[in-house]
Amino acid sequence: MPRVATGESVIARAVRVVEAFGLDDTSLTVGDIARRSGLHVATASRIIEELTAAGWLERDGRSVRIGVRLWELASRSSPATGLRAAAMPFMEDLHQVIGNDTQLAVLDGTEVLFLERLTSPNPVVNYSRIAGRLPVHASSSGLVLLAHADAARQEAVATAPMTVYTDKTIHTAAQLRTTLAHIRRQGYALCPGHIYPDTTGIAAPIRGSDDTVIAALALIVPNDDTAFTKIPALQATARGISRVMASAAAPR
Amino acid sequence: MPRVATGESVIARAVRVVEAFGLDDTSLTVGDIARRSGLHVATASRIIEELTAAGWLERDGRSVRIGVRLWELASRSSPATGLRAAAMPFMEDLHQVIGNDTQLAVLDGTEVLFLERLTSPNPVVNYSRIAGRLPVHASSSGLVLLAHADAARQEAVATAPMTVYTDKTIHTAAQLRTTLAHIRRQGYALCPGHIYPDTTGIAAPIRGSDDTVIAALALIVPNDDTAFTKIPALQATARGISRVMASAAAPR
Repeated sequence: MPRVATGESVIARAVRVVEAFGLDDTSLTVGDIARRSGLHVATASRIIEELTAAGWLERDGRSVRIGVRLWELASRSSPATGLRAAAMPFMEDLHQVIGNDTQLAVLDGTEVLFLERLTSPNPVVNYSRIAGRLPVHASSSGLVLLAHADAARQEAVATAPMTVYTDKTIHTAAQLRTTLAHIRRQGYALCPGHIYPDTTGIAAPIRGSDDTVIAALALIVPNDDTAFTKIPALQATARGISRVMASAAAPR
Repeated sequence: MPRVATGESVIARAVRVVEAFGLDDTSLTVGDIARRSGLHVATASRIIEELTAAGWLERDGRSVRIGVRLWELASRSSPATGLRAAAMPFMEDLHQVIGNDTQLAVLDGTEVLFLERLTSPNPVVNYSRIAGRLPVHASSSGLVLLAHADAARQEAVATAPMTVYTDKTIHTAAQLRTTLAHIRRQGYALCPGHIYPDTTGIAAPIRGSDDTVIAALALIVPNDDTAFTKIPALQATARGISRVMASAAAPR
């Protein structure tokens, strides 16, 4: 690749331009993008111009947005898309029967990435967002995914600082290790008040073709003594999705 | 931008690498990508390496896939995401009540791009796919969107060759113009057998803050004499989504 004076490639700079967009940034100015990406305005401008020509960004006066073409490309071929497509009919059924927020998550590094969320007209408080992230130690989905991850990943989380949301949030390595063992034994995570006092996250694992855990299915329900009654429906639904994922997996 | 010998920029080449992925390509080899993008294998390899470092592509041996990070970035900030989020609760309700495939589409050039589709366990035949496209003249969503597009776009479609799927497919400029006028008058498109003999597409417009049509909501139902009975529910749902989109629109 041709490299600019600093030694950073043009592609790396283009990546930084797109990565400047955060979860709530429907649009940014060229100045915003330059500042966030640490590029000169002229450099950022040229990259934005090229990405706009490709339809990856869209520009309307001073305002720059992610283009629908980038969404289309990413949605077409991402592994997340196959999982989402398999899970959606099951998630819809669970959402209709239970009536609480229903979400699908995967592990990415030491964070949970939410691929899908079906919400209620009057949902309980829910910090998760589609294409949003939460730290694994805090969310029920994260704990289920981490419980089935390799030991190195578990230790990386256990030995890093953990954000405390409430007095119920897991925040010590000992608590985390005990909880992960417990989740593996019982087959689900139940997290009353771990992120917000009034809500309980419940999550169960979704398995792929070789029985490895590839995703988590979660319900966000009110933090009361009926929360546990929703576990069987959640587990049954997660198993249904697992069966589809296992049968859909083509041999390499 | 530094330019390579042919005069094409590095970013344009990186775009071509990602655009090599088609609707059904979960993974491609480096050789596939080079061939489809018209790049030398060495050039494609270097670009793939950089995009993999950014998490935009993922590589597993010879197999290259779109990375979940690209999906995340595109989903976070695309205008399509806000529309989808507003529409989903309404679409779920409609899907549960009617039981047929329910889909959300936007106009992109002279094609319809499907942002979302809720399918039934035993759906009728449906050519649409999430992040897939259909020509506007053929699909009910496309006709609704084109009916409210500017005259230049309508003429571009009317004067271009139109793919014929069945003997009901609109395929002449005169048919198209008459149909668009009819759709504007009646407020929906009803397309029995236009793409597949056994199915009927029905679509209604979704409007944004300034009352312009921004999307179409469609049902794919069996092609029988009950199809029309589903129009009121579709229209009411499209209006519900329009109300949310209008109230959600923030002033620039």
